Amino acid sequence: MELENIKSPQDIKRLDIKDLEGVCDLIRAKIISAVEESGGHLSSNLGAVELITALHYVFNCPTDKFVFDVGHQAYTHKILTGRLDGFDKLRKNGGISGFPKPEESEYDCFATGHSSTSLSVALGLSTAAKLKGEHYSTVAVIGDGALTGGMAYEALNEIGSEQLPVIIVLNDNEMSISKNVGAMSKHLTRLRVSKRYAKMKSEIKRAVSTIPLLGDGIIYLLDKSKKILKRIVLSNKMFEAMGISYYGPFDGHNIRELVEVFSQVKNTKTPVIVHVLTDKGHGHFGAINDPAHSHGVSGAEKSSGKLFSDILGKFLVEAAEKDDKIVAITAAMAIGTGLEEFAEKYPTRFKDVGIAEEHAVTLGAALASAGIKPYFAVYSTFLQRGFDQILHDVCIGGYPVKLCVDRAGAVGADGVTHQGVFDISYLSLIPGMTVMSPSDGAEFRQMLDYSLTFDKPLAIRYPKSYSIDRDHAPIEYGKWETIRSDKSNVYVLAAGSRALEVAEKSAESVKMNLVNCRFIKPLDTGFLDSINKKGNVIITVEDNVGRGGFGESVLSYLNGTSLNATVKILAHPDKFIDDRDVNSTLAGSGISAENLTDIVKNLE
Amino acid sequence: MELENIKSPQDIKRLDIKDLEGVCDLIRAKIISAVEESGGHLSSNLGAVELITALHYVFNCPTDKFVFDVGHQAYTHKILTGRLDGFDKLRKNGGISGFPKPEESEYDCFATGHSSTSLSVALGLSTAAKLKGEHYSTVAVIGDGALTGGMAYEALNEIGSEQLPVIIVLNDNEMSISKNVGAMSKHLTRLRVSKRYAKMKSEIKRAVSTIPLLGDGIIYLLDKSKKILKRIVLSNKMFEAMGISYYGPFDGHNIRELVEVFSQVKNTKTPVIVHVLTDKGHGHFGAINDPAHSHGVSGAEKSSGKLFSDILGKFLVEAAEKDDKIVAITAAMAIGTGLEEFAEKYPTRFKDVGIAEEHAVTLGAALASAGIKPYFAVYSTFLQRGFDQILHDVCIGGYPVKLCVDRAGAVGADGVTHQGVFDISYLSLIPGMTVMSPSDGAEFRQMLDYSLTFDKPLAIRYPKSYSIDRDHAPIEYGKWETIRSDKSNVYVLAAGSRALEVAEKSAESVKMNLVNCRFIKPLDTGFLDSINKKGNVIITVEDNVGRGGFGESVLSYLNGTSLNATVKILAHPDKFIDDRDVNSTLAGSGISAENLTDIVKNLE
Repeated sequence: MELENIKSPQDIKRLDIKDLEGVCDLIRAKIISAVEESGGHLSSNLGAVELITALHYVFNCPTDKFVFDVGHQAYTHKILTGRLDGFDKLRKNGGISGFPKPEESEYDCFATGHSSTSLSVALGLSTAAKLKGEHYSTVAVIGDGALTGGMAYEALNEIGSEQLPVIIVLNDNEMSISKNVGAMSKHLTRLRVSKRYAKMKSEIKRAVSTIPLLGDGIIYLLDKSKKILKRIVLSNKMFEAMGISYYGPFDGHNIRELVEVFSQVKNTKTPVIVHVLTDKGHGHFGAINDPAHSHGVSGAEKSSGKLFSDILGKFLVEAAEKDDKIVAITAAMAIGTGLEEFAEKYPTRFKDVGIAEEHAVTLGAALASAGIKPYFAVYSTFLQRGFDQILHDVCIGGYPVKLCVDRAGAVGADGVTHQGVFDISYLSLIPGMTVMSPSDGAEFRQMLDYSLTFDKPLAIRYPKSYSIDRDHAPIEYGKWETIRSDKSNVYVLAAGSRALEVAEKSAESVKMNLVNCRFIKPLDTGFLDSINKKGNVIITVEDNVGRGGFGESVLSYLNGTSLNATVKILAHPDKFIDDRDVNSTLAGSGISAENLTDIVKNLE
Repeated sequence: MELENIKSPQDIKRLDIKDLEGVCDLIRAKIISAVEESGGHLSSNLGAVELITALHYVFNCPTDKFVFDVGHQAYTHKILTGRLDGFDKLRKNGGISGFPKPEESEYDCFATGHSSTSLSVALGLSTAAKLKGEHYSTVAVIGDGALTGGMAYEALNEIGSEQLPVIIVLNDNEMSISKNVGAMSKHLTRLRVSKRYAKMKSEIKRAVSTIPLLGDGIIYLLDKSKKILKRIVLSNKMFEAMGISYYGPFDGHNIRELVEVFSQVKNTKTPVIVHVLTDKGHGHFGAINDPAHSHGVSGAEKSSGKLFSDILGKFLVEAAEKDDKIVAITAAMAIGTGLEEFAEKYPTRFKDVGIAEEHAVTLGAALASAGIKPYFAVYSTFLQRGFDQILHDVCIGGYPVKLCVDRAGAVGADGVTHQGVFDISYLSLIPGMTVMSPSDGAEFRQMLDYSLTFDKPLAIRYPKSYSIDRDHAPIEYGKWETIRSDKSNVYVLAAGSRALEVAEKSAESVKMNLVNCRFIKPLDTGFLDSINKKGNVIITVEDNVGRGGFGESVLSYLNGTSLNATVKILAHPDKFIDDRDVNSTLAGSGISAENLTDIVKNLE
């Protein structure tokens, strides 16, 4: 059998079970080559090949619904549902998304990308079936990491009480369990489906030693003790007490066994959990031995530029050396946000709370209320989940929590679910929040030094990388920095590194005064007043949606005084953008040197 | 002893334990009289009198830190910490807040208001003590209802792993436990502190039959089966497995026993949970027999006006009768949002998920994706917690979830933590979201009827009440309704009932064209184009912060074409407002007929 011959799951259903192993080998080879070329999630996908193949062999997708939590492990599902061709451009424009997308295929019943949502979705789909009198199975595939998110518990709570036939496949590839095998094994010994699975757990090879997560090159640092609650949940006693039947654990790479157990639970009338133990990076030597760094792979075409996260990591280590009140918090993103060295040097002041942004924000607020200096490093898109806590716990109290908002703006390959283009809006609308954005690494370091003595809530937002460092004036609260003064009535207000890079390139072609708007909130109203003259043109540039963004706040401020200058806003439009390339995303929104140049030229 | 003589907790520490009961009786009488006069949370506070008195007797607040989850049960704490006088104006301007507030007293270490945050806060305070080498106890007082919020689990997870001496007092006043006593009692029999507590549980009188929650007049409807996960958590086995020592259950109205157990856990070096069983409304006949309706009491001065929630409730019942795909979702707010009758008539289509807004939103998205028609009725301030889910799960997929956003705008007595003045901003910034706001009940009903055939994400936001009904033109997507045409160059654009009431009153004094902006997003751009003329003045009015609000979107749209008219925005300022009276809140922000009239007069 060639992978090319699998046009739909029907094509593997015809096979004998013993032939599925060969299919899995082909899939595994395809995933490795595609990720090496285009980047993506390697080890999590390699771990789920047999699991997903068995699901398709047993269930009838798309009639039956598969919901993949986070969705970063669904490559096998995509290959088996007619999307093999798309792997040539995995995570690129024109190719397939790295996450499930209903627009891409009828086999993807619900879009995912953020963690811990699958149980809510599965319950919803199962409830809908009941209400409509339809009969299909609903399967949620959830990793052990996603169980650290509180939302998963909210859903479990209701699944247990509603008693609908939600099938939860727990894809458990975590080292912490085998390390804590003493506590766990007591709970996991009684297997329900068949006695012959009883020895499976001890047979699982576990060469891995880290806990993977979502995103681009992101992993958990080693903090196994954090997984206590999840360990409890894994106990069959707890599931059983909740009214959810527990089956497991099973060898997640033994496809015959997986087919057997899935067949047995397929027609369940009540909720079940099938606990499957998988190896991160199964079948790939490098990924098994270093799954942390094989979790998110950047592909052959490496991203260029220097990393803002390197600046943050270096700053925090140095600051922590001088001030024992510095604490770094991450929600399962230690490497992606640059905290590896900090975690190693200051383990007692490093807090990885799991995929728990809500708790992370409020924990920070409480620490700050007691005189500790917390820095929460988090991706823009995931900080959305802490919105209420930023408002209610941090800002009402005015506590000096420092939010280091990474991957702000367009994110490229991860696509629509991960765009960081909303944070200026959702942070700026909160009273008492100060929002800054550095134009480069040198200025980011200035801002971080400045943050040490800043005693109010503060967010600093920045994309993954930047190109050049510049010399800057010292930071002064609410003051912008003029980068270039031309004899021109055009004032370009650039918010952040990408905006400034666009403007600087444009300034090679047309005359403009160029301002580095380090503070997004508050605005430099003194400066704005000084340029609010008839005949002047103020052009704001930001890598954020226009709605509620930087440009609108500039416009609103000037309008509130008396609008004499002309204001033009360059920002992302009011729509979701699934462009997989940063530059093309920016250009598509008119956030480009070409567009800015055209605008300035057309003024003349 | 008179309550007036208690100026601080020191004054009760001098008493003999046997005299504390008398103090509790005085406190109870004071709470009853204050709530009858000013409104507030009656039954939850009556249930916690002995518990809080015992805490103050044993611990040394404010050195020791008390964190009250939600904070609606802290009246006894306020009385014992020198705030007795403030009870004459409980929840009113000039009096004390209904929730803990650090600005109000050094005994309130952290502001609360929203649910399920206390464990994160307590862990933060305990972590800070360790890092600073300080020694104080941290006590979180959390109700059983707050354990339905996922954030509490995120914190429990870390508390168990960090092994800091966080003392969790579980104030368990829920009927579901006694009803399900068979499952529970197995877990709760082994008491650790002393054998003589072993029979306490069965001695607790439990006359109550409902589950209380937070907010103003808000309670859980009876859905005891939802509490499964909480029941599991209550199991001492689970707590013990997480590394949290379990003590209980104790009689929460036996102050001698409470003092004894708190004394024993006071110097713990590791996390403990003290499980206390209390009667909702203890010592007050009416509150015991009907704690649901005694949970939030409105006080002698009843709120005037008709309730928007009544319109919603009636609509949903009628719609559900005709269409079996209608589903109503609430996050523990069934009565407050008007769903009582629906819950009774359509129990299988009524989903009370507990205090779990995140899950509620995503559940709705999944239901909608499968052709069900979910209406999620929720308070504006609590929907903040579902922000990421609205964006990621509802709007990226474009699923027709209908958000009925109650208590939008200024909320009065509940104060700063509950203001609904951010939803226009946080909803409008999300692509694909339609936001409407009715000017009265009649129009709300029109909007709800319209929503039945609207196949995209939709939020309808409204305050608690309105005054008069009007005749309206039919709803047309994105079109506004001109209410009044004067020969005037002034166009007042009113977003929502309160804005329109302000404008109508002003129109009695000055000439204006008055527009009912039923759609907040999208804007009626055709109309805006038609009035965007030099010499025209456009005044927007909204009960929302200006930042990212309706007025800014009008301004931004017009500026994007070519701003000819003059735009003025009336909205709340960029600060947190702790005014406890709706009209004074609005007036303080200039959202008043007087201010609007002055503005129009000054134009001439």
